Amino acid sequence: MTMSPLAPSRFPELPAIAGIKLATAASGTRYQGRDDLMLITLAPNSTVAGVFTRSDTAAAPVYWSRAIAETGRAAAIITNAGNANAFTGKKGNASVKEITNGLSACLGCDSNAIMVASTGVIGEPLDVSKLAPYFTELVNNQNASWYGVANAILTTDTFAKGAHSTCMINGKIVNLCGIAKGSGMIAPNMATMLAYIATDAALPAPVLAHCLQDANNHSFNSITVDSDTSTNDSVFLVASGAAKNRPVINANEHALADFRRALGAVMRDLAVQIVCDGEGATKLITIDVTGASDKATARQIGLSIANSPLVKTAIAGEDANWGRIVMAIGKLGVGISADAISINIGGHAVAKKGARVANYNEVPISTHMTGQMIDLSIIVGEGKGVARIWTCDLTHGYISINADYRS
Amino acid sequence: MTMSPLAPSRFPELPAIAGIKLATAASGTRYQGRDDLMLITLAPNSTVAGVFTRSDTAAAPVYWSRAIAETGRAAAIITNAGNANAFTGKKGNASVKEITNGLSACLGCDSNAIMVASTGVIGEPLDVSKLAPYFTELVNNQNASWYGVANAILTTDTFAKGAHSTCMINGKIVNLCGIAKGSGMIAPNMATMLAYIATDAALPAPVLAHCLQDANNHSFNSITVDSDTSTNDSVFLVASGAAKNRPVINANEHALADFRRALGAVMRDLAVQIVCDGEGATKLITIDVTGASDKATARQIGLSIANSPLVKTAIAGEDANWGRIVMAIGKLGVGISADAISINIGGHAVAKKGARVANYNEVPISTHMTGQMIDLSIIVGEGKGVARIWTCDLTHGYISINADYRS
Repeated sequence: MTMSPLAPSRFPELPAIAGIKLATAASGTRYQGRDDLMLITLAPNSTVAGVFTRSDTAAAPVYWSRAIAETGRAAAIITNAGNANAFTGKKGNASVKEITNGLSACLGCDSNAIMVASTGVIGEPLDVSKLAPYFTELVNNQNASWYGVANAILTTDTFAKGAHSTCMINGKIVNLCGIAKGSGMIAPNMATMLAYIATDAALPAPVLAHCLQDANNHSFNSITVDSDTSTNDSVFLVASGAAKNRPVINANEHALADFRRALGAVMRDLAVQIVCDGEGATKLITIDVTGASDKATARQIGLSIANSPLVKTAIAGEDANWGRIVMAIGKLGVGISADAISINIGGHAVAKKGARVANYNEVPISTHMTGQMIDLSIIVGEGKGVARIWTCDLTHGYISINADYRS
Repeated sequence: MTMSPLAPSRFPELPAIAGIKLATAASGTRYQGRDDLMLITLAPNSTVAGVFTRSDTAAAPVYWSRAIAETGRAAAIITNAGNANAFTGKKGNASVKEITNGLSACLGCDSNAIMVASTGVIGEPLDVSKLAPYFTELVNNQNASWYGVANAILTTDTFAKGAHSTCMINGKIVNLCGIAKGSGMIAPNMATMLAYIATDAALPAPVLAHCLQDANNHSFNSITVDSDTSTNDSVFLVASGAAKNRPVINANEHALADFRRALGAVMRDLAVQIVCDGEGATKLITIDVTGASDKATARQIGLSIANSPLVKTAIAGEDANWGRIVMAIGKLGVGISADAISINIGGHAVAKKGARVANYNEVPISTHMTGQMIDLSIIVGEGKGVARIWTCDLTHGYISINADYRS
């Protein structure tokens, strides 16, 4: 797989996070010559939070990890790449039990303290006997780098994704590091967006959950590659407490503002990297919706444009075919007044209040379309609802990855 | 444009419908060497019904024609191909007025009795002065064939679409003929699904409207090419009364059963032809959903599978990648129990009650995938809701049509 033309020039420098240990191993189950197991262990008294796919056909590890995340406490997260353990029935739950039982024996912790994430083929039973022999190795060699773990979770991604930030909480410096994988519902059989953010902040689990949910809405929940939702999507936020900041009880306290900014930045960075690794992507499309009747409607409009195959192919073809944006807004059928809609492309007005601008000039717009970063701005003219959605174009590369190569 | 590999071998023989006259003309506005104007005139006392796009950015002619259809009476329907007259603001309404005023003078009828349909570019003002000179010709030469009118309304379709049927109403033979155009939201700038069904039945407008709505749900409302809804979609049903059948007052009367069967058959035939002309289509996919909690959920499941780019590309690649079907069901998030879902492909069981069948054999399924007609069957295991949805595969052809050729 050639690297996406939208890939960052290199993986960022990510510092170690005190209280968080990383490990990888190569089971060779599906991939040869690379790591496919990843372990994150957390210092005692760490807190955790998670957000998970809302799919009705969610994978067995999603049900398992969601229940643990709700307790706010965990000792470790183990991830395998190559098999999603999704739509595997009772056997799927048994596989999760086998993993957590085996690993808890090596780690000396309760099996209910181990969260699990899987990514890969849907519908194939997961044979844990092929992974278990590597658990001891994972536990005994917890000195992997963020770059190492970011690579171990990849399936058909074309580059490893990482981001970091620092902030202050009550006068103490706090670090955040994150890694992610995914490019929509990924190529041939590979599913899933996974993300892991670790911080040394000391924060109660409910505060962590609140911050994660909010940042998630403006990052991973605001991206789309092909409108297809994976059975395994999971985002984990773990906090070791090693920064020893004074406790913060309420997520809305001013003391937490900088942390929430930094968390938002890390998650947005990772989310945009996932779009940039979207299958066949050659352009990153940022869609700003303003003036919608409310926030939810603004999101709906942005996602309808972002998921429209006709909008995405027009952009792939560098065609300033803005009529397709009109179509994508209208097809929602939520009662938007066409006469109030204005559209800008690359900062240039295309349509104003329901019709093409009088002195329409396609030249600067066509020039903008030739770039790698495409900006669409929709002004709905009905209220104060805003949303920003990221997506990529729909190209021959997407078809090649998903249709030409048999899985 | 090469003809779709799924095109029927020839246009069917469609008889004239007593009381319905057809005409075409070539304005040369956008296309050279072909007709682009189409007129259907109706005998006095004809009744009409229509269903229209639910888009919030519906075109000016849609608003106009919907209001007339609601009265149940009309004298004519005029259609232009090449410009959708959509997102054209006040000017768009003025263009419709110009068309109906000009044509009503030639026809000697009220301008409020003329329905209008447009298909083509969105957002460009429609210059009626280029069409009006051809109105006299349309009115004076009303001897076109169904094949002629079926061709005059095409934009980027690769073949003309027609269908017919006969039936009995209270002992009288009744004829139905239909034509249609469309392949989703069509290539480069061309939008719209349009269909016209004419019958010589004598039926009150409310009965006609009821029959149309019902048949529409099981035909044009059950197909999807790319999930994009046009600003101009319109389906017209006109009845001249020339068959002189004894009146039927209620759409649910037994006397109407054969008519409703025939209408359903014509509309389903046209709808499937539209899918077969879907941009880049190489396979017709029929999705049967049974056992859903209700009809609406069955439809949602069918459409989610039919609109999933990953399912459609897998089928394009002749890949029995059924995990993507699981994903497409799950992503709806409507509370379906994964453990109750069974899936058949081409009549072969793939998954039963939430997991792959024990003795899974991909060979017969892979063989089925190499054909042009792909059958997916989903048994939800929750109730009695059923739905059938048609779609096509997603291929390099779709990308080429929509991205490679600039409009």
